Formats: sequence, C-alpha cells, structure tokens
Amino acid sequence: MIFAKVVGTVVSTQKDVNLNGKKLLLCKEVDHEGNPLGSYHIAVDAVQAGEGSLVLISYGSSARMTSATKNAPIDAVIMAIIDDVQITHKVKG
Amino acid sequence: MIFAKVVGTVVSTQKDVNLNGKKLLLCKEVDHEGNPLGSYHIAVDAVQAGEGSLVLISYGSSARMTSATKNAPIDAVIMAIIDDVQITHKVKG
Amino acid sequence: MIFAKVVGTVVSTQKDVNLNGKKLLLCKEVDHEGNPLGSYHIAVDAVQAGEGSLVLISYGSSARMTSATKNAPIDAVIMAIIDDVQITHKVKG
Amino acid sequence: MIFAKVVGTVVSTQKDVNLNGKKLLLCKEVDHEGNPLGSYHIAVDAVQAGEGSLVLISYGSSARMTSATKNAPIDAVIMAIIDDVQITHKVKG
Amino acid sequence: MIFAKVVGTVVSTQKDVNLNGKKLLLCKEVDHEGNPLGSYHIAVDAVQAGEGSLVLISYGSSARMTSATKNAPIDAVIMAIIDDVQITHKVKG
Repeated sequence: MIFAKVVGTVVSTQKDVNLNGKKLLLCKEVDHEGNPLGSYHIAVDAVQAGEGSLVLISYGSSARMTSATKNAPIDAVIMAIIDDVQITHKVKG
Repeated sequence: MIFAKVVGTVVSTQKDVNLNGKKLLLCKEVDHEGNPLGSYHIAVDAVQAGEGSLVLISYGSSARMTSATKNAPIDAVIMAIIDDVQITHKVKG
Repeated sequence: MIFAKVVGTVVSTQKDVNLNGKKLLLCKEVDHEGNPLGSYHIAVDAVQAGEGSLVLISYGSSARMTSATKNAPIDAVIMAIIDDVQITHKVKG
Repeated sequence: MIFAKVVGTVVSTQKDVNLNGKKLLLCKEVDHEGNPLGSYHIAVDAVQAGEGSLVLISYGSSARMTSATKNAPIDAVIMAIIDDVQITHKVKG
Repeated sequence: MIFAKVVGTVVSTQKDVNLNGKKLLLCKEVDHEGNPLGSYHIAVDAVQAGEGSLVLISYGSSARMTSATKNAPIDAVIMAIIDDVQITHKVKG
C-alpha cells in the first residue's frame, strides 16, 4: 500500500460496465509525513474518501477485494482513510 | 490505472488464440493534463476507444475483468475514456 | 520478498470492513545487512512482528495467503521475522 | 505488454515439472520502432516465435492464460508476433 | 523471470505456517552473462538450487505454482537452474 492524498476526480462516460457507479479519484502519492512524492495515481474509492483526505491505496488483484470493486477492471483502490502515522523506531538510529 | 493517449495500432497475425478479434492499441502515457510521460504501452481496447482518445489503462489480472478481455493472455486494458479531470486540492498547498 | 524494519504504526478508523482487526505497520526497506534503502512500505502484520523487528514483506496476491489477511484488500504482508542472513557466495568473486 | 526482440535461448535441465517442454527465450526489450531499451527479459514462447522475431510479452498471472503456459510457474509469455506498428497520432502535436 | 545467483540463506523461526519447511534463499540479480545487477532478492527454492547456482526467479502469483510453494504467502520462487544461455541475434546489429 502507499500513502496518497485525494486531489481531484476523473470523469468518464464511456467505460466498462463494471465501472458504473464507481468513483474514480485522482490521488497524489505522499510520504508518511504528507509530503508529495513524484507521481499521480487514479484509484477507485471504497471508503467514501473526501477530496483532500489522506488515504491508503492498495494495488493489483487486491484492489478488487472490496464490495465496491468486486470484479471491476481496476488495479487500485482506496481502502482506508488515515487518522495518524506513529513512528516509533529509526533504522540504524 | 494510468492516463494515456491512444497513438496507434499494433498488427499481429500469429498470436495466441485468445487474442483473436481483440484490438491492440499503442498508447503513450500522459499526465493528468495530457502532457506526455516517458513510456509507450500496448493495451487491448475494451471501450471502442478511437485513436487520439485520452483513456485509462488498467494492469495485471484486472486487465482480464472486461467482457472483451476475459481469459486473454494480456496484462493491460483500456477500460474508460476520459471526459474530464478536475483538480480540487493541492498537496501541501 | 524484501527485507524491511518495522518503524511505526498506521492508524485508520474509516476503512474497508475486511481490514477490521488488522495491524497496519509502517516499514522501512533495508538491505541484507539492515542498512536503510529508499522507500517506506505499509504492510499488514501476520506474524506478530514487534516494532523494530527485521522482517520479510511479500507483495501482490500472495499477501492474501495468510490466515490474517485472507480476502483483505491489501497488497503487502509481513509473513516472517528474520533471525539471520548468511552470505556464502559472492557474484563474480 | 511490451515490445521485445527474441535474441537467444535459455537452457535448463533441473527445473519445475510444469516447465517441461516449454521454450525459454531470451528477449531484449525494444521500443515501437525496434530500438533496444535497457533490459533483458526471459519469457516462455506460446506462439512459436523464431529467434530474431519482434514480439509482444505479457506479464504476471496473464502469462499463464495460454494453452502452452497454463499452471506453469512463469511470469512472462510471448503471446503475439508483431507484423506492424502504425502510429497515427502524436501527443501534444 | 530474471536471472540470479544464489548467494546465501535467510533464517526465520517466527513465520507464517505456510512457510514451514521452505528454504528462503538470498539471491543477487545478474545479467545473461552472470554479471551482478543492482538488487538482492529473497526467493523460495523449488528446485533444490545449491548456493552459488545460476537460477531463474519467477514473481507474483506464478511463484505459487510449484508444488513446493502452493498456497504460501511468497512472491518469488526459484523454478529453474540455468545450464546455458545462448545468444543468437543482436538488436539493430
């Protein structure tokens, strides 16, 4: 999974039938402190994430394991909204 | 999923039987504003995407979840044509 | 699989129902000697890994093959705690 | 899928039983014009690709969707031989 | 699949039950001539690969397609030992 912030929406009329009713969100990958990383990701929302939310995105076949995304031809799902990230250890520190 | 623009077609006669009748399209990855990114992608069309269309491509096992691609040995499918991308938030802005 | 060190926890209340009761851990990828590599990873814990542990993370559909992660929309699982790494050969040495 | 050129063969005697009778080919990734890109790929041949052929390689679970590769522990398959690539559009042109 | 050389072993006591009895090997990716490439990989051995062997590693769900790895939460398997790599063509040569 990666951290991302929801920054917009993607609108599509002509699409596979299994995408009907699904919300496509534009997300910007961020690090554990919310700082932007390089790339944009398009993911289907399974947790009613508001725009601006800090979320977790899961990829691959696992993206089809929510009730909102079952059998859909999508490879990325927002499956959690992040409340907090607590860092307790350092590597080689 | 990634954004891409359809830029051409790939022609193949000698191919796996499950590819018969499928349209192989050459796509250029673009960002959310339509600016070209580095790489080309070959994907099967599941939504009658015209050449020049801005589309979404889904990867992996999810690429086989459309009626056009079921059981086919392909790892990328065009499953939506993009009408609009609306950006509503900024990261750290 | 990759080596990683558990460095923190991720807290989420609003999430897919299949994530209930699962521990989301923040992990830093490390090399075979424990030196940090570039990226952070979020993974579900399947082996009661303590924070600070050196662990193995498995990705993709394989992340759903533990009893703790079956059917969950997650793409990374901690499935082993590392006791030791023994290097016995060198490449071109 | 990616474009590749078949450049050699890989010989293995001691291998998983599901690899018996399968042809392992060494492939060099190329772009849509046949120019070499960085990396080599090892893929199983499902379409009787001759050495020197320009081919398509499919990855992941999709690599097991041909009759030649069903249930085999392989993650890359040659599933089409390319006759032609026709570019009809430019991005931002 | 990628080429790799087996360079060591990974020892784990506390692990998912489906890993019991499986040999975790530390592998260094190499090119088709045996020259080391950047990264280390941890893979389960399905072909009794000795340390120092030149092997093929398969990734993703395909890593679970050997009798040694069925249903295990692992994403990389050694499924062949390489005897020889024969290069017969050059790209753009």
